[in-house]
Parts: sequence; structure tokens; C-alpha cells
Amino acid sequence: MERIPILQIGEFLLVTIQVDMHDQLAMTLQDDLSERISATSAKGVLIDISALDMVDSFIGRMIGTISGVSRIMDTQTVLVGMQPAVAITLVELGLTLPGVRTALNAERGMRLLNNSAAPQ
Amino acid sequence: MERIPILQIGEFLLVTIQVDMHDQLAMTLQDDLSERISATSAKGVLIDISALDMVDSFIGRMIGTISGVSRIMDTQTVLVGMQPAVAITLVELGLTLPGVRTALNAERGMRLLNNSAAPQ
Repeated sequence: MERIPILQIGEFLLVTIQVDMHDQLAMTLQDDLSERISATSAKGVLIDISALDMVDSFIGRMIGTISGVSRIMDTQTVLVGMQPAVAITLVELGLTLPGVRTALNAERGMRLLNNSAAPQ
Repeated sequence: MERIPILQIGEFLLVTIQVDMHDQLAMTLQDDLSERISATSAKGVLIDISALDMVDSFIGRMIGTISGVSRIMDTQTVLVGMQPAVAITLVELGLTLPGVRTALNAERGMRLLNNSAAPQ
């Protein structure tokens, strides 16, 4: 079955989204991720979307849900690698990703997670 | 243009291969990666193939080339996350990935790179 890999890097989980998301894939990712958070007691989750040329409301909602689930599980999520054009489109569309923290790249996202004293 | 993202994690570069590779994508990845190695002075490259259900001779050769180029640029490459079924098929096909170091997952691959005293 097609699924998006979740890599453990130290205390963090890293998800790189490269393919078009559809319902089933998004559900599988949410399930896999919450299981991995529980199994590894990860301190944070990094979602890299640098490969995406477009982020629609579906992906936006999925990221919001992942972020919400992580927060309930005492883990923080940071969205990293957003292309400038994607950010512009998101704002123009009114999709401001409420409750989702962002960082320019994976490196900075990790620093952000390391520096944040308490979960959001 | 479609390209595979290269993430910098500390002193390492991480490439997660999730999509079917074709000639142009493989060439772009090789170019991008050597540029990033040069720009970041990365200590090592991790190539994660946990999402691949199949590794054919084309991908095998590409990984070998990337590994060779990295070595010349004084960087080490570790292939991580290979599924058991993929390993079995590779050996059965006689594709033993000469010169490519492997590790079970990204975590161990990073430890391997950290512990290796001198470039291979």
C-alpha cells in the first residue's frame, strides 16, 4: 500500500510530502504519524513541503489536523520548506493555516522545536 | 520542474525517494545533490528508500553513482530504510550495490556517519 514514509531523526519525526495527497493517503499518514508519536515519544514533528508547487485547502486542512492531533499527544508540529509562491497563494486564498507553526527549512524547524520550552 | 527535495539536518543531507525515478529526475537529483554537498560542506548524505517497494537496476545504478560522486567530494553516503523484500529481490537479481553503505533506518544511518572516523 502506498504510504508516506516517516523518518525518525533523533527526537523528531520527519515527513517529506512529495506526492499529490488524496483522501486515503492523508488518512494513512495521520494514522501512521499518531502511532509513531505514541511509539517513539517524539518531541516534535517536521512536515517538509518543499517539493509541493501548490497547497490547496485539502492539504492545508490535513496539516491543521496533524498539528492538532500532535498537540493533544504533547508533541509539536512545524511545517517547513514552503515555497514563496505557495505562501503567497495560501494567503491570497485566505488559507492562513491557523495553529500551525512554520519555519523556513528543516534546519530552522528543528532549532525552533529544540528551543521551545513548553509545547504550544 | 519536478525534483526530489534535499533536506539539511545538522551536518547531513537527507534525500527521501518516494516517487518512481526516471532519467531526468535522477539526473536532476545527482546535480542538485552535488551542488548542495559543495554549498553546505555536508559530512554525509542519507538516502531513504523506505517508500520504495521495488529497486531496479536503474535505481541501483543511480545510488551507486551518487555514492561515488559523494565520495570524490569527500562525503559519505548511506542508503537507509530498505524494505526486507527489496533486499531479497536485489540479491536474487545479483544487484549487490557495491561500494554503497547501508543502514536499517535514518537513525542508525546517522549514527554510522557520526561514528565513521575517516571517509570511506
